[in-house]
Amino acid sequence: MGHYSAFHYNAKLTLYREDEVFVSDVHIKLLKQVIKDGSINVAAKNLKMSYQHAWHILDKVNKLSPIPVIIRQKGGRDGGGCNLSPFGFKLIAYYETKEKELTDYLEQMNQDIESCFF
Amino acid sequence: MGHYSAFHYNAKLTLYREDEVFVSDVHIKLLKQVIKDGSINVAAKNLKMSYQHAWHILDKVNKLSPIPVIIRQKGGRDGGGCNLSPFGFKLIAYYETKEKELTDYLEQMNQDIESCFF
Repeated sequence: MGHYSAFHYNAKLTLYREDEVFVSDVHIKLLKQVIKDGSINVAAKNLKMSYQHAWHILDKVNKLSPIPVIIRQKGGRDGGGCNLSPFGFKLIAYYETKEKELTDYLEQMNQDIESCFF
Repeated sequence: MGHYSAFHYNAKLTLYREDEVFVSDVHIKLLKQVIKDGSINVAAKNLKMSYQHAWHILDKVNKLSPIPVIIRQKGGRDGGGCNLSPFGFKLIAYYETKEKELTDYLEQMNQDIESCFF
């Protein structure tokens, strides 16, 4: 049965608002990089993402959110620094908790994969 | 709290072999259409997918599978008809069972979303 253990299930958690993607793993990665770098521009560079793409992602998060997630400071070379609101930090923690729960659930699902699959 | 109920989690189940996608919702949709139509060509048309794309998906499934999933009959206009092996049918049933389990799990996750989220 050795090579059957090569099979496993996985699933990515996505938080929707109505039919629109509100928060996915991509959003979380970018939000955490923005916390680290304090700038969308630097965060985008570090993730090898265009500034436009990063800006678009974050702008949509803010638009879909009932409470602002990203707070931009005006002025400066980068159009000002950037940080997360307290709600933004809460949102990351909340998503990651649920993601961890899902990972544990999938791990259980994968435990009996050899006996069920074939 | 009315508009907060607009938020919900979702996740798509994917079965991997090592790092490669073996079966996803897209694969299942195509496999079921092939059962219906008995032809990759017709199935691809009905799903508004190119024949090349459909063929590539199914070829990869067969290559990753320890047991053939798709069985092609030679000859004829369409390069011959096409059907699933008994293992192919089992694979669909197995994926859909796990997918239903995941849906139920996510439904539970979404039940307390209002109280946890804000």
